[in-house]
Amino acid sequence: MAEQFDVIVIGAGPGGYEGAIRAAQLGFKVACIDDASRPDGKPAPGGTCTNVGCIPSKALLQSSENFEQIGHAFAEHGIGVERATMDVGRMLARKAKIVAQSNDGILYLFKKNKITFFHGVGSFVGKTGDAWRVAVAGKNPAELQATHVIVATGSKPRPLPNVAIDNVRVLDNEGALAIPAAPKRLGVVGAGVIGLEMGSVWRRLGAEVTILEALPSLLPAVDTTIAREAQKLFARQGLAIHTGVTIGAIDVGADAVTMNYTDAAGQAIAVSVDQLVVAIGRVPFTAGLGGDTVGLARDERGFITVDGACRTNLPNVWAVGDVVRGPMLAHKASEEGVAVAERIAGQAPHVDFNTIPWVIYTSPEIAWVGRTEQQLKADGVDFRAGQFPFTANGRARAMGDTRGLVKVLADRATDAILGVHVIGPLASELISEGVVAMEFGAASEDIARITHAHPTLSEAVREAALAVDGRTLNL
Amino acid sequence: MAEQFDVIVIGAGPGGYEGAIRAAQLGFKVACIDDASRPDGKPAPGGTCTNVGCIPSKALLQSSENFEQIGHAFAEHGIGVERATMDVGRMLARKAKIVAQSNDGILYLFKKNKITFFHGVGSFVGKTGDAWRVAVAGKNPAELQATHVIVATGSKPRPLPNVAIDNVRVLDNEGALAIPAAPKRLGVVGAGVIGLEMGSVWRRLGAEVTILEALPSLLPAVDTTIAREAQKLFARQGLAIHTGVTIGAIDVGADAVTMNYTDAAGQAIAVSVDQLVVAIGRVPFTAGLGGDTVGLARDERGFITVDGACRTNLPNVWAVGDVVRGPMLAHKASEEGVAVAERIAGQAPHVDFNTIPWVIYTSPEIAWVGRTEQQLKADGVDFRAGQFPFTANGRARAMGDTRGLVKVLADRATDAILGVHVIGPLASELISEGVVAMEFGAASEDIARITHAHPTLSEAVREAALAVDGRTLNL
Repeated sequence: MAEQFDVIVIGAGPGGYEGAIRAAQLGFKVACIDDASRPDGKPAPGGTCTNVGCIPSKALLQSSENFEQIGHAFAEHGIGVERATMDVGRMLARKAKIVAQSNDGILYLFKKNKITFFHGVGSFVGKTGDAWRVAVAGKNPAELQATHVIVATGSKPRPLPNVAIDNVRVLDNEGALAIPAAPKRLGVVGAGVIGLEMGSVWRRLGAEVTILEALPSLLPAVDTTIAREAQKLFARQGLAIHTGVTIGAIDVGADAVTMNYTDAAGQAIAVSVDQLVVAIGRVPFTAGLGGDTVGLARDERGFITVDGACRTNLPNVWAVGDVVRGPMLAHKASEEGVAVAERIAGQAPHVDFNTIPWVIYTSPEIAWVGRTEQQLKADGVDFRAGQFPFTANGRARAMGDTRGLVKVLADRATDAILGVHVIGPLASELISEGVVAMEFGAASEDIARITHAHPTLSEAVREAALAVDGRTLNL
Repeated sequence: MAEQFDVIVIGAGPGGYEGAIRAAQLGFKVACIDDASRPDGKPAPGGTCTNVGCIPSKALLQSSENFEQIGHAFAEHGIGVERATMDVGRMLARKAKIVAQSNDGILYLFKKNKITFFHGVGSFVGKTGDAWRVAVAGKNPAELQATHVIVATGSKPRPLPNVAIDNVRVLDNEGALAIPAAPKRLGVVGAGVIGLEMGSVWRRLGAEVTILEALPSLLPAVDTTIAREAQKLFARQGLAIHTGVTIGAIDVGADAVTMNYTDAAGQAIAVSVDQLVVAIGRVPFTAGLGGDTVGLARDERGFITVDGACRTNLPNVWAVGDVVRGPMLAHKASEEGVAVAERIAGQAPHVDFNTIPWVIYTSPEIAWVGRTEQQLKADGVDFRAGQFPFTANGRARAMGDTRGLVKVLADRATDAILGVHVIGPLASELISEGVVAMEFGAASEDIARITHAHPTLSEAVREAALAVDGRTLNL
């Protein structure tokens, strides 16, 4: 006898679990199905973000940043340290504990919101009347029925052809977060967010890191001013990033991995490393979903086809997050999950794709919202740009981290803010002001005229806004 | 022969120097007079904020926080440290260097903006026609004339009756920033911003800190929820704060200072400390200004009397910052200085006193904008409150600092945000989003619906906004 629900959510990542919670808040009877398990077999809801993405990477970034600070920054403050050591096992145990707390937190939220959680793989089986039938394969198999299904099955790492991920020598994001001891030499294929973040972690812990990138320049999606600054700062840190390379054979030996590639100048090069991280992007994940059974349409790249409101080709079947078009960002998934729940309840929510912030948690961090200078030029928009370096910011000086800058782009005629770009300390937190401003259609002069607390890093955002009009106060 | 200017600014603190820069940007010929000197006799523009306030205190807070992290937080990350020592002399030298950089930065800005700087005490002498005559007393005496004068002479510490500040045993903010070695026992009279910040610095470096406060509760201007949380966290840190005390005789001996006081229960207590910081507030500073010579009106507390636009009783004489009514905050002074320059140029700027953010740089930091719950109750406003703890925030967990919470207050009928209150990691930076939102008359639902990057601390602001409507996603 199938269990009856109003809404079944397949996948408990940020899109799935927050969509399920919102649906429950709106009075629906909700089931959420997720297959991920912890090492001890307990469920691990939270998706890639919680288990092998945002959360554990930020845990390791913080630990490794703390370690690097001792060696590099603390002496200037008068702090003497006789010998600093990093116990990687303990660092990973801390990470695992934080992940488990998050898993438990989501299970608690399901309970609190009266959402029934099923641990297993959820698959479409068919339809009975208006109700979709979904099977749960796992320790406790079940069959569920509901009028609405939200698919939030996420994404998985894109494989490198002919290179098997073993998570011992050749690692994906999951393996890169669990290297048992800092390697002497770490190779990374792909200078995207994951490659840069993982390269940063292990470099700080002592690895010699070589990053290979097929694209001709670093971070092409990032504003060119910011990307140039990033390249300079990463090089200074000792991250060896080679762009414009053609990846050749990857030879996995017993003791080492050899990356063969042709550099931008056409020269053949071989670099041997102890471990190799493959981080060349992610692809939508729909294995086991049974989409074909019910005729769920996907595009040629494997994304479930949806409209602007996350409707699939099937009635009352929705899809959100990494498994559909748009940026593969946890907060984009959450917004879509929440919005779908509200649409099911008859509300008219709106997710503003123009103001979704991006963050790269390198050191310094990179964050932005809106369009880049190169996008504005391509779009033929007449704009003014203002920028302000953290070297001229009192808080940054007092903190001892003056790397980076803020750049504000505004329409020349209306002064409306078109983009805010930050590379620098706590860029991830500074960007929220930019998002709020853009949501309210703020002009650069608005930010320039709004009081910013002194001394804060956020004053650099204000000064960059003043710079749009050529009237910084502190530069 | 008097030098002729359009605008003379007396005082080069945040209100003075930024006002001078704005006036110069608007095409005026500007002089700025400031008396402060560095140890080597060179000018030290920047006022209390740069020399003995915001900037040096944040430098020491960062250094001492780094030191404390090694001892308390780093082990959890797997970081082992054999022996950490603090060289207070080097810490103070770093602070002095940062202050000197800021002094130099302002001198550079004067040059760049073609502002003539005079190092000395500026005093009103009289009037010739429409022009105010101002004398500069110093190494190079001068007499200047200008149609407009902006007084930005700031404030000085309020003395404790019968207790002389010697900055050896009994310290004001200046002395508290320059103790040559961490005292064993530090006393602080006054649990305001300066007392708490200085107490925090020296406690982290090993001092046993006792703070006495005459008011019945800690931080009465802070939202009660936040103040209660602060009290709990400070106590856990080992800051001994006694409120509701009556301060008696302060006996300054050769080796110690004895603070005699009566506690809230009426019991007489004597505590001996090695150094005593007096931080019972600040009073406006107008000594040497020659205000009486020209009839510049001051109120009974010594503040120069101004209207909402910073006009004094004298034509074309303006006053800004700590020397006039309103909060003694660097950024409030800056805003007033800039606004006065624009008014002189015939513009109509507006400083919104309702959205001036406040920050206390304790650990964790405290920041807020708008009204507190107790103010709203006193004002008879019908409101809803939402709050969200950092324990439920993924970034805070990954960082390893989950202390504190965010609280959002919104009008029950219109949902307009009336206050945003934060105690927690980086509260000083998180508050800028709240200020921007309030400036745009945002509703709590606006913040709830704006995408916040994941994982960031700013998500806690969004969740607190969701909590106003009783629908947090992650709590």
